[in-house]
Amino acid sequence: MFPIRSLISSKTLSLRQFSSSTTPQVLRPGDILRQSRLFTEEDVTQYSKVSHDSNPLHTDPVAARDVGFEGPLVHGMLVASLFPRIISSHFPGAVYVSQSLNFKFPVYIGDHITGEVEATHLRENKNRYLAKFKTRCLKNGELLVIEGEATAMLPTLTFEEEQCKEC
Amino acid sequence: MFPIRSLISSKTLSLRQFSSSTTPQVLRPGDILRQSRLFTEEDVTQYSKVSHDSNPLHTDPVAARDVGFEGPLVHGMLVASLFPRIISSHFPGAVYVSQSLNFKFPVYIGDHITGEVEATHLRENKNRYLAKFKTRCLKNGELLVIEGEATAMLPTLTFEEEQCKEC
Repeated sequence: MFPIRSLISSKTLSLRQFSSSTTPQVLRPGDILRQSRLFTEEDVTQYSKVSHDSNPLHTDPVAARDVGFEGPLVHGMLVASLFPRIISSHFPGAVYVSQSLNFKFPVYIGDHITGEVEATHLRENKNRYLAKFKTRCLKNGELLVIEGEATAMLPTLTFEEEQCKEC
Repeated sequence: MFPIRSLISSKTLSLRQFSSSTTPQVLRPGDILRQSRLFTEEDVTQYSKVSHDSNPLHTDPVAARDVGFEGPLVHGMLVASLFPRIISSHFPGAVYVSQSLNFKFPVYIGDHITGEVEATHLRENKNRYLAKFKTRCLKNGELLVIEGEATAMLPTLTFEEEQCKEC
């Protein structure tokens, strides 16, 4: 339905978005929005509290190693929270409709994770926009640790660089 | 592959699990595990902090009403955190493999939400168990607000009542 821009142009737009330009961008299929984060032990502690998730894999190094991991894991749902954060920081007021998540490799405390959402389909619906995205998290810029798809209702397709302060 | 128990027996097991009996239960297809939670404004504030998600729909009543909601929304991913919490509280050491989420209706601050995970397929794999679940969140015991599916690797199929303290 929409022409998909080449990977090169997508990456160019993604870089442009993080440049010093404040020119509003208009989201198009093929565009990739990115944000990165390093997850700390304090993040895991705070997420355990707010989610009431007491799985020892996230807090007990022995329990984690017993299952074959190198150490305590960051909760997959905390890592995946990068996706709605990326979408809503570019499009405040976005309403999340769906998300699929495949957890492919563990994320450990201290890992540097980059979340990516790539627009695949955009459809206007009563002055709002139903947007579908491929969603990915990469560890150290290369290992695919989470992949899936998201759908959100956006109030506009226009976004500005200053809405993303942590990239 | 496994016979599905009737809804009646599933509900019976679900009730048995929350009874005063401490007899270990063995998870079987058709079994439903449940936990409930009321989401507070403090929960939303703490989740916003740990997820870095600053979508105004979660904090600004005017922004939420402008989109047609009754008030600030609880983050969908926070509500959905009930699913891994339910699984890991019954099976400590469970490793999450996948989760799909369809957000069908809004969850507001103060809403009473019941999460359910229903075992659908169980397969032994190298002394562990690959378990598939249907996952649902109900508002006030009846309105389906989130539905999807989850897959997790469980260390055992046996669980005990005392591993679930907040039901």
